Amino acid sequence: MDLSMSDVRLARGLAKIREIHGEAGIEVLKSLEAASPELARFTVEFAFGDVYRGGALTTQQQQIATIAALVVLGHAQPQLRVHIRGALNVGCTRAQVMQVIVQMAVYGGFPAALNAAFTAKSLFDELDRES
Amino acid sequence: MDLSMSDVRLARGLAKIREIHGEAGIEVLKSLEAASPELARFTVEFAFGDVYRGGALTTQQQQIATIAALVVLGHAQPQLRVHIRGALNVGCTRAQVMQVIVQMAVYGGFPAALNAAFTAKSLFDELDRES
Amino acid sequence: MDLSMSDVRLARGLAKIREIHGEAGIEVLKSLEAASPELARFTVEFAFGDVYRGGALTTQQQQIATIAALVVLGHAQPQLRVHIRGALNVGCTRAQVMQVIVQMAVYGGFPAALNAAFTAKSLFDELDRES
Amino acid sequence: MDLSMSDVRLARGLAKIREIHGEAGIEVLKSLEAASPELARFTVEFAFGDVYRGGALTTQQQQIATIAALVVLGHAQPQLRVHIRGALNVGCTRAQVMQVIVQMAVYGGFPAALNAAFTAKSLFDELDRES
Amino acid sequence: MDLSMSDVRLARGLAKIREIHGEAGIEVLKSLEAASPELARFTVEFAFGDVYRGGALTTQQQQIATIAALVVLGHAQPQLRVHIRGALNVGCTRAQVMQVIVQMAVYGGFPAALNAAFTAKSLFDELDRES
Amino acid sequence: MDLSMSDVRLARGLAKIREIHGEAGIEVLKSLEAASPELARFTVEFAFGDVYRGGALTTQQQQIATIAALVVLGHAQPQLRVHIRGALNVGCTRAQVMQVIVQMAVYGGFPAALNAAFTAKSLFDELDRES
Repeated sequence: MDLSMSDVRLARGLAKIREIHGEAGIEVLKSLEAASPELARFTVEFAFGDVYRGGALTTQQQQIATIAALVVLGHAQPQLRVHIRGALNVGCTRAQVMQVIVQMAVYGGFPAALNAAFTAKSLFDELDRES
Repeated sequence: MDLSMSDVRLARGLAKIREIHGEAGIEVLKSLEAASPELARFTVEFAFGDVYRGGALTTQQQQIATIAALVVLGHAQPQLRVHIRGALNVGCTRAQVMQVIVQMAVYGGFPAALNAAFTAKSLFDELDRES
Repeated sequence: MDLSMSDVRLARGLAKIREIHGEAGIEVLKSLEAASPELARFTVEFAFGDVYRGGALTTQQQQIATIAALVVLGHAQPQLRVHIRGALNVGCTRAQVMQVIVQMAVYGGFPAALNAAFTAKSLFDELDRES
Repeated sequence: MDLSMSDVRLARGLAKIREIHGEAGIEVLKSLEAASPELARFTVEFAFGDVYRGGALTTQQQQIATIAALVVLGHAQPQLRVHIRGALNVGCTRAQVMQVIVQMAVYGGFPAALNAAFTAKSLFDELDRES
Repeated sequence: MDLSMSDVRLARGLAKIREIHGEAGIEVLKSLEAASPELARFTVEFAFGDVYRGGALTTQQQQIATIAALVVLGHAQPQLRVHIRGALNVGCTRAQVMQVIVQMAVYGGFPAALNAAFTAKSLFDELDRES
Repeated sequence: MDLSMSDVRLARGLAKIREIHGEAGIEVLKSLEAASPELARFTVEFAFGDVYRGGALTTQQQQIATIAALVVLGHAQPQLRVHIRGALNVGCTRAQVMQVIVQMAVYGGFPAALNAAFTAKSLFDELDRES
């Protein structure tokens, strides 16, 4: 993927990644590109360039939906961590993030919620050490 | 479950069910009570009385999180239908509901999103016929 | 699959199916055989002939484990129904079956538990009508 | 979605849908479009236009992978049925389809494999009646 | 969560945690409380105080059901480890635990069963070193 | 498990493991045998001795189906790694493996595909260092 490629969807996707995840998101993307340039391109163009384009949902509502999904999936801890940080970046509070996680105990079960709560706590601690 | 029982959590849960799901929610509850009074009581007291009590999330945000989770689970079409209606009841728009569903194609895959979109469409059509 | 075939594992599996599920189990098996003789043979020989052979668990404990798994999987309502009936056949009570289902709300979430409770209730009602 | 819209990805996606699923695929697409035009467009452009574009895998290998995934997901019977028909359309045999399903008993468990085998059988019977 | 709080459900839940998991369970709980006091409270009050209260199932049967569910979920290795130890604490044998895991190969697939068997083995080895 | 035991299914299973996974597969098997001799035996006899016996699918097609399933399951990274290596052993290319993974973004969601792509990349890097 040529990051300077002049493609509307790609540019829109990269802008959305920067808005939600900041430079950390671009780092994850580069690491994905090393594994599969095609999957990296689809992530930027489709997930961030098309789907997150939205219109009906605010960016905060989008992150709440994504966190809920990642908690319930159970096997997506790296993505959950990235999106919790993204949720905080776009203005969600830690209390809101944790409440989504707690709510998921009802839908995905307690083990999924507990593992997510530990992931969130570990990120919050890291953010506290950074600041 | 004695629906008139004077218990704080039970009363709080029933009020929350009425707020989100209206009398249709109480009907579902009665049918659950016929299957398992214990599970019905836990649904009211714990899910609606404790978890949805919230504080950090608005009722709309809670419904967005729940719909995201139910789409991704894939096997929860009856609950998805009930919660889409609940989301509309508390002020989410149809466009917002559908956008959460579309967003879930990224996290839970297209089949889960497609089945959810058909469930939402079928509910929207029913609501149109009712009105 | 020649049901009269003199094979130890096959005979052991068929005996186990009859013990747990009765003639209803043989009917399910025949219908599976019409779809895939190979899968039918593996179900008898491996699942029932090998795995359920057990030794450490009682037949009741095996059915409790299977029901728990089927509730949590969420997409296996036909198998759940068959195994709830099997659990009753080998001496589990309806109260025990329902308690396993309720317990699964903690591990697989409330939607999975609710759908399972409705499946169990529908079977219990059918059994009441039959008797 | 304007089906005549001159967009490369859209055209490529529609051609791929016709190649794999024939006119039946276009029918499913129209019904999806009635539920969510956005999700219909993403299905054509992204899933069929981008992902299935492939290069390294043959169309038969792609269908084998998709069927395996749909069996294991468990909650995607409508998509499984559509893709089994698609697999037959592109030259896979019924025996190959059924063997993928049986193999999935090892990875997704017997209930998922059994439900898939019944779905396949029901489609095969329908195809036999049609011919 | 004030661990000395005089609440019937909380006290009942803590007693159940001590019965099943011993002081190790209280340690996990404290660590969860540091991440989310609310989720910790719900775990004690609801999961252990309400659901495990049971009546129809023995504590051993409850642990068998929980282990089956955790194996099949696949993403809950930390909880699986804790509950295997709990199962041994309440009188289940290692052979029974392993047989539940093996049985789950039929319902959740071999990968879930294999990962669970390795988790159980690692715990058994640790217990052998401790004794 | 007595590896020299003269049993047709066992011998056939071990030969299939050696064909797909080489001596590395036998090592995994020994480690599984230390955890559960019964599960090790079932893996050899049933999964490799019976199911992979096939007839309708080539060994490459079988590996493609298995990789698709393991990506979508999400919680089976160790097995995914083993089977990607197996796919390469039986003649699949790295490009084919990665394309199956990318295709799974459509069916199991992007998080499952991303985690699988990183697992594949880590294996490819290891193989490059070995050679």
